[in-house]
Amino acid sequence: VSTRNGRDEGWSRSTERRSQHPGPHPNRDLGNRSPYPRRLDDAHMSSVLSRALAEGILQSSDCAAVFYDLTHLDSALCALRDSFPSTALHAAAVKANPLIEVLKRIRAAGHGAEVASIGELQLALAAGFAPSDIVFDSPVKTGGELSLALASGVMVSANSLAELARIGHICSVENAAALVSVRINPEVGSGAISGTSVAVRRSKFGVSLLDCRSEIVRAFSEYPWLAGLHVHVGSQGMASDQLLQGVGAVYDLCIESIGVSRLSFFNIGGGLPVKYHESDSPMCFDEYAHSLRKRCPALFTSDIRLVTEFGRSLHAGAGWVASRVEYVQDHPCGSPTVLTHVGADMFLRKAYRPDEWHHDMSVCDSAGHLRRGPPRTFDIAGPLCFAGDFLGRDVALPEDLQEGDYLLIHDAGAYTFGMWSVYNSRFFPAILGYEDEGVSFQHLRRRQTTSELVRFWSRG
Amino acid sequence: VSTRNGRDEGWSRSTERRSQHPGPHPNRDLGNRSPYPRRLDDAHMSSVLSRALAEGILQSSDCAAVFYDLTHLDSALCALRDSFPSTALHAAAVKANPLIEVLKRIRAAGHGAEVASIGELQLALAAGFAPSDIVFDSPVKTGGELSLALASGVMVSANSLAELARIGHICSVENAAALVSVRINPEVGSGAISGTSVAVRRSKFGVSLLDCRSEIVRAFSEYPWLAGLHVHVGSQGMASDQLLQGVGAVYDLCIESIGVSRLSFFNIGGGLPVKYHESDSPMCFDEYAHSLRKRCPALFTSDIRLVTEFGRSLHAGAGWVASRVEYVQDHPCGSPTVLTHVGADMFLRKAYRPDEWHHDMSVCDSAGHLRRGPPRTFDIAGPLCFAGDFLGRDVALPEDLQEGDYLLIHDAGAYTFGMWSVYNSRFFPAILGYEDEGVSFQHLRRRQTTSELVRFWSRG
Repeated sequence: VSTRNGRDEGWSRSTERRSQHPGPHPNRDLGNRSPYPRRLDDAHMSSVLSRALAEGILQSSDCAAVFYDLTHLDSALCALRDSFPSTALHAAAVKANPLIEVLKRIRAAGHGAEVASIGELQLALAAGFAPSDIVFDSPVKTGGELSLALASGVMVSANSLAELARIGHICSVENAAALVSVRINPEVGSGAISGTSVAVRRSKFGVSLLDCRSEIVRAFSEYPWLAGLHVHVGSQGMASDQLLQGVGAVYDLCIESIGVSRLSFFNIGGGLPVKYHESDSPMCFDEYAHSLRKRCPALFTSDIRLVTEFGRSLHAGAGWVASRVEYVQDHPCGSPTVLTHVGADMFLRKAYRPDEWHHDMSVCDSAGHLRRGPPRTFDIAGPLCFAGDFLGRDVALPEDLQEGDYLLIHDAGAYTFGMWSVYNSRFFPAILGYEDEGVSFQHLRRRQTTSELVRFWSRG
Repeated sequence: VSTRNGRDEGWSRSTERRSQHPGPHPNRDLGNRSPYPRRLDDAHMSSVLSRALAEGILQSSDCAAVFYDLTHLDSALCALRDSFPSTALHAAAVKANPLIEVLKRIRAAGHGAEVASIGELQLALAAGFAPSDIVFDSPVKTGGELSLALASGVMVSANSLAELARIGHICSVENAAALVSVRINPEVGSGAISGTSVAVRRSKFGVSLLDCRSEIVRAFSEYPWLAGLHVHVGSQGMASDQLLQGVGAVYDLCIESIGVSRLSFFNIGGGLPVKYHESDSPMCFDEYAHSLRKRCPALFTSDIRLVTEFGRSLHAGAGWVASRVEYVQDHPCGSPTVLTHVGADMFLRKAYRPDEWHHDMSVCDSAGHLRRGPPRTFDIAGPLCFAGDFLGRDVALPEDLQEGDYLLIHDAGAYTFGMWSVYNSRFFPAILGYEDEGVSFQHLRRRQTTSELVRFWSRG
């Protein structure tokens, strides 16, 4: 028993949908390849966990660990590449999963990196990305950061007209061969999750298309180095048609008032929702590309280079967490409380905004075998010293769950450990990469050591 | 102009209140010492910031920095010590402010440390605390962690009857000279902030007094090493009488069913709210001690050692943040948006639970001089790449606020950088300690470097 219902059907559903497309994509041969990697199920996780325990990769000190399926990432990268024109630059959002080893793999697959801070830019450079394959987004780029990025040939997305003016000053001074775009807010409204809805009326992101259309058009006359448009509507919680509507509005601006030939590139951002519930049916990459192609044909047929910034859809489904059940506390009324070793430190959004986020959970025994007892409800409490540190209330899990078991937390590869909160100085857990269901484990990141932790809080 | 109204009146109010006490405390001579340090005001912050800028301690790369008034901490530690019996152990909550340099200062003042994880235990040991001055609280202590703590003479607070049984096994095996207490949940209900209300019906903390009274009493018969009671009702948002009611309920249990002579120590936890709004009037330490003494006299007159676990009330008021205004974006409707360099990374609770938390703000120009223009409202946006990253909406600040200014964020010494989220790989800022309004600055922690950041996300 798990909170999910049986085996994953994502693959066959996607295949079925794809067959409804009016025709094959010109850029790829679908062959028998899945357009999107299959959702990992608990049988897969149990198999991998069992191997990790048997091989001693997962040690008793690892009260929690992240598992990351590198093959799954490869499939997602492949599906992404195959869905868009071969000239597209797919700049993976570093924030979703900033592990250097993962970034290296993305680079090796021929993709780029989207960075949202100067720190992320340094991570991308450390992982070996060429500056020309990096897109620098941030709403607070300083003058120094802009100079550094422009001088090194990184693509820069300006967040505002004020930033464009600042870039103009730098470009006129340094005469950099700038690769600058301007981010447009198409104001398509909020999705189901306000915290990830960036294209709203009072967003901090982008220049309002509604209020500043003429200023945007004028900027393309004024700044010869302004070479691209950028739009990003949101992330989890946005409806498919909101994504298309947002890109479409900026595309229309391009066609009507700027001209396709004036642009070198068009950055459609990321924001494809992923499947957290078995009942979710998000678009896969090729469905999205197919819809985009219909709505914005010149992005697929002209010399404009398409840039994407996907993150969640590359990583979320590739990662999962195994966290040991330390105690189970009965309550005379209500669900028993399961006390486990990850909480608001790793699943920050789930703990602080519990109604907006969800992760399926399953349970394995201490050897990694799935428990399949009949369900009962449990409260899932994290390790942190505050009352709100819960991963779920009244979660249906096997009633034979007991101390020493492992809680499996699904779809945890994006926006989880990448948002790690140092609260309570819990050790950042080991992150174990694997391929082919458990063969060739590798540490993508070792468990944090005491000396690392002490150094973090020391004078430095 | 600031969001606060005029100079702080905390000192005079406290003095006035103190004079209403029925008599002097037997344990101290109040003399002309303040019972609680005065709230730092924006004139103070401006003065310190100006010096830091003039002396070059704050550099242009420090787009944000934390300032921490060590004299303020000293005063708070002193007020705490003077309010309670001299035999009390005041174990400062490491989670509120885990800086090693700050912990060393607390130790040098003769206080102890409360640790909520094995990582925090290592920080306390690194700061030089004697194990016997450390209290180890955590809802997920593993067998290995318990063995280590008990063997080294750390005081352990058991969170549940199951944990007591686990300790019993270790104690019978290792015959440790254990200093164990059991945490009781008096279930006094929720305060204004659910996330910090731990004494509720389905809390993950403590043994329910309502459901398990007889089991608790039996544990004191069964376990000779069980030497203390522990209660902690909550933190910010709890009413004074809830705190007293919670401690009182566990005190009554002791008096009625266990016996004062059976206990070596009684841990009243922390949880004293602090002043975030000028209109807040939280109890100061001596008022709380005074009320406790009336409600629970034997804690002040018997041989029971009193243990406290204050955190927020020691640190919150000692720290403040200066964060540069990078951009100001006008909106045709609504408040302009101030884009600045701290957000949900440092003020995690404020960004994710905006209605529950508050920080007053002021503005200084680029030389550190207070802006005093007439107020208008601004939205305060952080640097992070998600829509919810705001420190406030429609905050009244001087209308002459401009790019290059510093936003001062008040009362930021507790549960702020100590909960730092690594999201977007922003550099952990410099933390500058100072004494006597800006003389003798010292780095309590240097700004994180690129190599530290890259190492954090590397294989290790």
